[in-house]
Amino acid sequence: MTRSASRATVAGRLSEFDLIEELFAPLATAPGAFRLKDDAAQIAPLRGHGLVVTTDALVAGVDFFAADPPAQVAKKALRVNLSDLAAKGARPFAYLLTLILPRSTKQAWLNAFARGLREDQSRFAIALLGGDISSTEGPLTVSITALGRAPRGGMLRRRGARIGDLVFVTGTIGDSAGGLALLRASDGGGTSPAQRRRLIQAYRVPTPPVRFGLSLPGLASAAIDVSDGLLADLGHVAEASGARILIEAARLPRSGALRALWGDGLRAVARAAGAGDDYQIAFTAPRRAESKILAAAARAQTRVTRIGRVEKGSGVTLLDDKGRPIGARHAGFTHF
Amino acid sequence: MTRSASRATVAGRLSEFDLIEELFAPLATAPGAFRLKDDAAQIAPLRGHGLVVTTDALVAGVDFFAADPPAQVAKKALRVNLSDLAAKGARPFAYLLTLILPRSTKQAWLNAFARGLREDQSRFAIALLGGDISSTEGPLTVSITALGRAPRGGMLRRRGARIGDLVFVTGTIGDSAGGLALLRASDGGGTSPAQRRRLIQAYRVPTPPVRFGLSLPGLASAAIDVSDGLLADLGHVAEASGARILIEAARLPRSGALRALWGDGLRAVARAAGAGDDYQIAFTAPRRAESKILAAAARAQTRVTRIGRVEKGSGVTLLDDKGRPIGARHAGFTHF
Repeated sequence: MTRSASRATVAGRLSEFDLIEELFAPLATAPGAFRLKDDAAQIAPLRGHGLVVTTDALVAGVDFFAADPPAQVAKKALRVNLSDLAAKGARPFAYLLTLILPRSTKQAWLNAFARGLREDQSRFAIALLGGDISSTEGPLTVSITALGRAPRGGMLRRRGARIGDLVFVTGTIGDSAGGLALLRASDGGGTSPAQRRRLIQAYRVPTPPVRFGLSLPGLASAAIDVSDGLLADLGHVAEASGARILIEAARLPRSGALRALWGDGLRAVARAAGAGDDYQIAFTAPRRAESKILAAAARAQTRVTRIGRVEKGSGVTLLDDKGRPIGARHAGFTHF
Repeated sequence: MTRSASRATVAGRLSEFDLIEELFAPLATAPGAFRLKDDAAQIAPLRGHGLVVTTDALVAGVDFFAADPPAQVAKKALRVNLSDLAAKGARPFAYLLTLILPRSTKQAWLNAFARGLREDQSRFAIALLGGDISSTEGPLTVSITALGRAPRGGMLRRRGARIGDLVFVTGTIGDSAGGLALLRASDGGGTSPAQRRRLIQAYRVPTPPVRFGLSLPGLASAAIDVSDGLLADLGHVAEASGARILIEAARLPRSGALRALWGDGLRAVARAAGAGDDYQIAFTAPRRAESKILAAAARAQTRVTRIGRVEKGSGVTLLDDKGRPIGARHAGFTHF
């Protein structure tokens, strides 16, 4: 882990050396991390496995609210990366952390942030491998690079969906967007306080199905993490696979909280399917794999719902109860 | 490579999808990068090699000037990372790029930035593997994670210096600090315009000795990249190795341009040795390796200077012509 010589302190008093030593070195428990005491970290090869790597950054005021609880910011920053690995069927094991801190950052904020990292390291069996701390005149920014091991045969791809495959998604869709809408002080609809908390929590701390993702290689034909929005992301799968994806609106898994917030009409379904930041996995698989997929979902205690099928053609189409296409104007996406 | 759904455009018109497709996908030439068309990238294991990974971020207004030429910002962002790999004896092969852009970023800036990346990819035989693009209300920020292959036996460490070893450094020391001083509009001393350009260039675009670094495993006992300042960084080596490092001030390699700027007295030498951002390699090696080291330096066309020795004790001491310690008050560092 490094820091720049030109700026000796953050958080008013603690030097960046102290920060690394006190807060982050204890998180660097992997042998190749050298307790953040070297210029770089080392990863030993694992026989028969490839490495999968992804990077995602969160910026205060864009991806989270500056006043969000710091432990939750830490978890979100980690989990948006773990979500990418989960969708590729890779087992996460380490991450690098770059923290760009406003000079006004408080020690208490950093303590809570490090606690959030520690809790998620334990939950997901990962360790800090290295990083960088810097300062900025702008908003706090967290950039994470996460590393996973791909099983023999390589990582799952967006391409690979075949005509006749079924389409699945984990968890529920739209909760994060509902939570964001609530945080922006829109009307709470018919939600209870507990439901509002649940939706806001979905926005602040996603729960990517990391364990379930490990069972996807060998079962799924293509997979993607749902970050741009379910329809947009399945559009990426359709394009990469050279196929058309049909989604039955009535099958889209939505939480009771989101139904209470946005209602049950087609417009509400399309809104959920067009919203982003779900950090679930959307994937395709041959029909014969369905029972194994559902068994794996049960073992991982992950909700998995069959939502559609793959056909000849291109693009993604949302279908109503009678199998009629719902106009794309409802879907809230523009990217394909 | 990813982008967030909540912000469709940067640079006024181009969507982040377009940016990735037009500017960055052509840089993603490694097979496991999938042309930035997937959630993550894949790295195949290389038999007998471990992976070395490092990350460093640059923030406008802190690590570079917002008005610096964008191609040079790109190169600096890459090279501060390549410097870490070089000091560990690792061969760089790929990097991930996170770009946090103010909304005012111009297309021309991004074009030139991508050109800088492309030129350095060719120079250092590396390729873009993945990344993230985000927006900010604050200054432009570039975060890079660089990957290298460590030879059999693992990467060079900061620890490993032994009593009796010699101490070496590549290149010249202090040029970057001299360039920064000039950019801050301080007096140009006796420098010529060409000398001032050379010092400013050293600040804007470091030239880490990547090729020479590859010959260090098997020859050097410990190594570090000079980023905090030569004395501070050798202090890290001394501490990690449980030894004392003595440096002869008269031997410190300084460019003619820096001598013209800061003069030749002990204070000028100590200033160069205490300054940072050199992105050279400081390393220790047994006496018997010296001739091989100099031969490797000649092959790599890298200047390498013997500057001191390793003794029993702790810390780093700068010695004058008569072998007397120069007070640490001259050295401008506080970290050990």
